[in-house]
Amino acid sequence: MLDVCLLGTGGTVPLPGRWLTSLYLNCAGSAVLIDCGEGTQIALHQQRISCKHIDAILFTHYHADHTAGLPGILLTMAKSDRTDPITIIGPKGLGEVLKGVMMIARYVPFEIRYMEFDAKEEQFDIGPMHFTAFALKHSVTCYGFEVTVNRTRRFDPQKAQQNDIPKRMWGILQKGQTVEHEGRTLTPDMVLGDERKGLKLVYATDTRPCEAIREHAKDADLFIGEGMYGDEEGSEKARHNKHMTMQESAQIALDANVKEHWFTHYSPSVRDPFEYEEEIHAICARTVIAKDGQRADLAFEHEETKED
Amino acid sequence: MLDVCLLGTGGTVPLPGRWLTSLYLNCAGSAVLIDCGEGTQIALHQQRISCKHIDAILFTHYHADHTAGLPGILLTMAKSDRTDPITIIGPKGLGEVLKGVMMIARYVPFEIRYMEFDAKEEQFDIGPMHFTAFALKHSVTCYGFEVTVNRTRRFDPQKAQQNDIPKRMWGILQKGQTVEHEGRTLTPDMVLGDERKGLKLVYATDTRPCEAIREHAKDADLFIGEGMYGDEEGSEKARHNKHMTMQESAQIALDANVKEHWFTHYSPSVRDPFEYEEEIHAICARTVIAKDGQRADLAFEHEETKED
Repeated sequence: MLDVCLLGTGGTVPLPGRWLTSLYLNCAGSAVLIDCGEGTQIALHQQRISCKHIDAILFTHYHADHTAGLPGILLTMAKSDRTDPITIIGPKGLGEVLKGVMMIARYVPFEIRYMEFDAKEEQFDIGPMHFTAFALKHSVTCYGFEVTVNRTRRFDPQKAQQNDIPKRMWGILQKGQTVEHEGRTLTPDMVLGDERKGLKLVYATDTRPCEAIREHAKDADLFIGEGMYGDEEGSEKARHNKHMTMQESAQIALDANVKEHWFTHYSPSVRDPFEYEEEIHAICARTVIAKDGQRADLAFEHEETKED
Repeated sequence: MLDVCLLGTGGTVPLPGRWLTSLYLNCAGSAVLIDCGEGTQIALHQQRISCKHIDAILFTHYHADHTAGLPGILLTMAKSDRTDPITIIGPKGLGEVLKGVMMIARYVPFEIRYMEFDAKEEQFDIGPMHFTAFALKHSVTCYGFEVTVNRTRRFDPQKAQQNDIPKRMWGILQKGQTVEHEGRTLTPDMVLGDERKGLKLVYATDTRPCEAIREHAKDADLFIGEGMYGDEEGSEKARHNKHMTMQESAQIALDANVKEHWFTHYSPSVRDPFEYEEEIHAICARTVIAKDGQRADLAFEHEETKED
């Protein structure tokens, strides 16, 4: 349903065997990349994901470890004969970054549309994915992304009959339209069952812990959160450079009651993040010490039966 | 003496397992990088070469597969607490490219000096390496580089004595200075042996074959030349997009009588360049189907003895 691939788990500097943090999402054929550092296009290739069909690239912020792969990926899209426009979305300042990018990637033969946002929260849709960008606490303006996929309500024929809805109106109402019919207002509610839980993923990196992450990650199916350092020395650096430790990230995952939590954006000084696994699992058992190419295919919960 | 590492052998697009074409040279502690595509800093890391001490970065031309790694490598140098200035050298247009780069790599805490050149040939020195940039034939302005390391002439005590040079003058003359002494002009020639062959390396990629490569590569110790395609279909593409085939490159190596020849800048469509090895060796037995990380340490020839 919502295909998720964490292309890289590194922060700051790309390393042999650890790509920079970037997330690929695909839902019903709509594909989104969040962040694009140096090497992200190679990580996509390694995961056998074509960059040709990416609909949108989103940026959390404009530090180079999240952006420097943009000229290269645009040119590789061009070489794959892409003609479809691409949408690029990010905080204010995107226009300036794109000017710089286009001085390196001189000729891109498809349209680049872009949207900058500035508010504390910003909402937009890409295919069936609904995005909420929310402000984080980094050394520069930086946003997290909440991605939700709504689940349509089930058609309930019993309810439709109880409400005396003519059969030829069922399809129209099921699609969400309201109809005036023989003096009555027929609404979708009259033929649809209860609201059903959709999917929620939250991606938040390059930030100190903050309430916004906890709120947005509440009951999420997957929370991908920064785990830049694991030791005491790193903890100081995290406070100083506005990053998050593994311990802080796991605590948010616990507080927000997420189903699963992946670390990302490991510092190059963290040689083996699994060193901290035991300590982290004592905080939150649902935390995964994610690796490059970590994948999940998030699916809706099994439908509840009438007896539930 | 001249430590050579071909960091990557790819052209156009970086691939898993094949970095973009870039050359690292180190001679007596002076270090130079030629071209810097997306991922070059990771290739350096993989070869255990620190980017902190690179004195100069040279560009052949400004297609992104040769330049897009620049913002990332400058920031990685910054993170390694580099304070020494760096010199960047390339054809006209470098200033504009650097403007774009600095929109991505916002804050670099050391000085960036740069030099653009425009002439058909341009000469400059970096440590003991003498560079000649020479114009190639690509779709945009593009240069090859000839790198020579001169060998000092040997001190010849017999010659010094025959010329009746006082011993206290030997050291001064050996260093290349001319001295007026007791009414005589003493020159270095009076104490030095014959001229000795130095080292020569030539790097030429992204070009149609041309006479300039043949001239500069004449008798070179190492010629690193483009071998973008190996088959007939590629041959047409090479003519169209101003690249060089393996066969053309090997023919130049033969004509120029080079000691060794390495291919680079393979097209992503060339899955296995070794497929063409037999055919290429029928043209030039000294051609090496180079791989990422191909290394050589070029040394001066053994000194000739008096009897030779």
